[in-house]
Amino acid sequence: MQINAERLWSRLMDMAQVAPTPAGGSNRQALSDDDAAGRALFEGWARDAGCSVDTDGVGNMFIRRAGTNGNAAPLMMGSHLDTQPTGGRFDGVYGVLGGLEVIETLNDLGIETEVPVEVGVWTNEEGSRFARSMMGSGVWAGVMELEEVRGITDEQGISVGQELDRLDWAGPLEFGRPVGHYLELHIEQGPILEDTATEIGVVTGVQGLRWYTIELTGFPAHAGPTPMDGRKDPSRPLAEILTTLYAMAAEHAPWARVTPAQFRSEPVSPNTVPASITFSLDLRNPDLAVLDQMEQTMRDVVASATERHGCGYSIAIDNNSPPIVFDGDCVAAVQQSVETLGFSHERMVSGAGHDACYVAKLAPTSMIFIPCADGLSHNEAESIEPDEAARGVEVLFGAAMRLLRVDVA
Amino acid sequence: MQINAERLWSRLMDMAQVAPTPAGGSNRQALSDDDAAGRALFEGWARDAGCSVDTDGVGNMFIRRAGTNGNAAPLMMGSHLDTQPTGGRFDGVYGVLGGLEVIETLNDLGIETEVPVEVGVWTNEEGSRFARSMMGSGVWAGVMELEEVRGITDEQGISVGQELDRLDWAGPLEFGRPVGHYLELHIEQGPILEDTATEIGVVTGVQGLRWYTIELTGFPAHAGPTPMDGRKDPSRPLAEILTTLYAMAAEHAPWARVTPAQFRSEPVSPNTVPASITFSLDLRNPDLAVLDQMEQTMRDVVASATERHGCGYSIAIDNNSPPIVFDGDCVAAVQQSVETLGFSHERMVSGAGHDACYVAKLAPTSMIFIPCADGLSHNEAESIEPDEAARGVEVLFGAAMRLLRVDVA
Repeated sequence: MQINAERLWSRLMDMAQVAPTPAGGSNRQALSDDDAAGRALFEGWARDAGCSVDTDGVGNMFIRRAGTNGNAAPLMMGSHLDTQPTGGRFDGVYGVLGGLEVIETLNDLGIETEVPVEVGVWTNEEGSRFARSMMGSGVWAGVMELEEVRGITDEQGISVGQELDRLDWAGPLEFGRPVGHYLELHIEQGPILEDTATEIGVVTGVQGLRWYTIELTGFPAHAGPTPMDGRKDPSRPLAEILTTLYAMAAEHAPWARVTPAQFRSEPVSPNTVPASITFSLDLRNPDLAVLDQMEQTMRDVVASATERHGCGYSIAIDNNSPPIVFDGDCVAAVQQSVETLGFSHERMVSGAGHDACYVAKLAPTSMIFIPCADGLSHNEAESIEPDEAARGVEVLFGAAMRLLRVDVA
Repeated sequence: MQINAERLWSRLMDMAQVAPTPAGGSNRQALSDDDAAGRALFEGWARDAGCSVDTDGVGNMFIRRAGTNGNAAPLMMGSHLDTQPTGGRFDGVYGVLGGLEVIETLNDLGIETEVPVEVGVWTNEEGSRFARSMMGSGVWAGVMELEEVRGITDEQGISVGQELDRLDWAGPLEFGRPVGHYLELHIEQGPILEDTATEIGVVTGVQGLRWYTIELTGFPAHAGPTPMDGRKDPSRPLAEILTTLYAMAAEHAPWARVTPAQFRSEPVSPNTVPASITFSLDLRNPDLAVLDQMEQTMRDVVASATERHGCGYSIAIDNNSPPIVFDGDCVAAVQQSVETLGFSHERMVSGAGHDACYVAKLAPTSMIFIPCADGLSHNEAESIEPDEAARGVEVLFGAAMRLLRVDVA
């Protein structure tokens, strides 16, 4: 093993002590004093490791180990240090400290690289205090406007801009500057690796997702005197729609995801046929053509089931995020690294969004997953084992060396 | 025709002018000044027709045309004069003014009867201002306690007891005193008679009903990373349960009623598998054995569908009202009356509750329905035609004469 597994674990545990929660998690919400304390701890380690530290206008922090060619686009690793209010100890943190561990290992091995090696700490990935997730990487990649996100406020009315100014986080680095390759190491936040006892997930892309609000409209009528045949009852098409949606998910297994949620109906009366039933629908697939096909199946069954039962409908799209296919060279570097190390692995897509989704718009990118207990995340009980953590960073190190064309075998 | 159709219609229209609504309905909520104004108008007509007027402790008003045998239990007709806040002109009112028209017709024809003939005006049938429907008849029949209902308050905190005292409505008549027969004439409040172009419904009973609150519990999980197979998603059993419930309704057609409503789910998040989905269920059938069987089918499918998908459930019973089978003599009197008159008719059960449900606990009872436009009720657009109104009262008159053993043919 080339990385220092004890140093890695010790730093993960130290970071967890910055704004710890009673149940063993962390609460470092974006742009808070706690978030700043986490960054300060990380910055100390980075400076001790000989790195320079800079930020950009939205507070993204980049630590940099210089290369022999100061003009070369860096190899970047990274993730985020902010957490959910009752967050876990590893979501985001693991990718940042894993990147630092790669730099430490380069130092330990006395390796000079031509291109600089950086670790990015993206601002407000969680989007819980300020409701725009992956904000820092979004602005960096040009998907969001700096002025717009500076205006976003938390529940107390404090804006992102106020906090960036107060914490003096806005620095001179340019958004979207050239990056040679970007690698993000992360816990899976799902149960697939654990369920199949697989050590490493080679992440080839990110699910496309679409969110809909579907309203089925009927005609309110008295539950007693109104015969069943004369009703326009939106519960009837609802049953057919749900049945078809789950059959569709099975048809496109294993990656299709179908999640109806947020059910509500009007009027709130036990003896009136509902005038309307509304629910949200989250559809995901890594293949755009399949995602399109899933949407069409959904639209077809909503139209036909409501028509069959004399009901009406509306479908609104609330979110449309296309699938992301990661860079072939980056994925290959991870694949070769894990094969060389001999860890069990499988190729998979990420079901959740990550900063890598936005970085991938400008730079060759891929991700590495490790298992987490019960697939639990955004939860104080989020848990990984030290040897799982070490394996992931070893794979990251190996992939980085391949992309840096450094032979350490 | 023996009744005076013009007088009947004119009084229906006059009563509609007491607290009229802009859209053509009435707003005489129970125990309000408007309700009292409606009663005052009715009382004037009753006294002009030679009736005495009395009330009981819960404000039920009874007008009485004396019989030759003052000790005989009266034949009673009746319904209610209170309305929903945006109520129609005929719900309840038609049964009261129909009863008065029978008395007027007896006067017109110079007929003396052995037993007294009464019309009851039951207090707070609607249960909208004071949330206990069929309150007056419920207390009269001993189903509710006077002291308890006096304590029920409206949204302004005013109690039934305060209003009874303020309006001086509480009188000396005893609850549950002997009644020979009770006949309630009512608009159908459903579309069956209109749909089949039938003039009169001979009501043989009232649907039994049960209200349940059903909660399906799953396990909240991220809509992206969580594979479909590993989910405990309550939307899956929901689809199966709804499908089975509607098949059950079809199996027990035409009288079985199945109404799921009041859907809600937690958490309110578009990308989390729901932790729970809750809905209400209203089951109705005129046959107790079939209603029991429907409940069992529901319990079986809730248990099996949730188990099949790894979910849990709970079922609470919120209301359990057994079917009511009306008195054979009363139903026969209505049937003979309508046959003699030659109106088209069908035997049917009432899907909604009426004061007759409680009166039937103590006295031989039945009901007569006439069509209403589009089955619409509890709605300002509630509508009937003058000739429909007249036919119903003619049937009521004929049935009453049969029960009074008066030969007017």
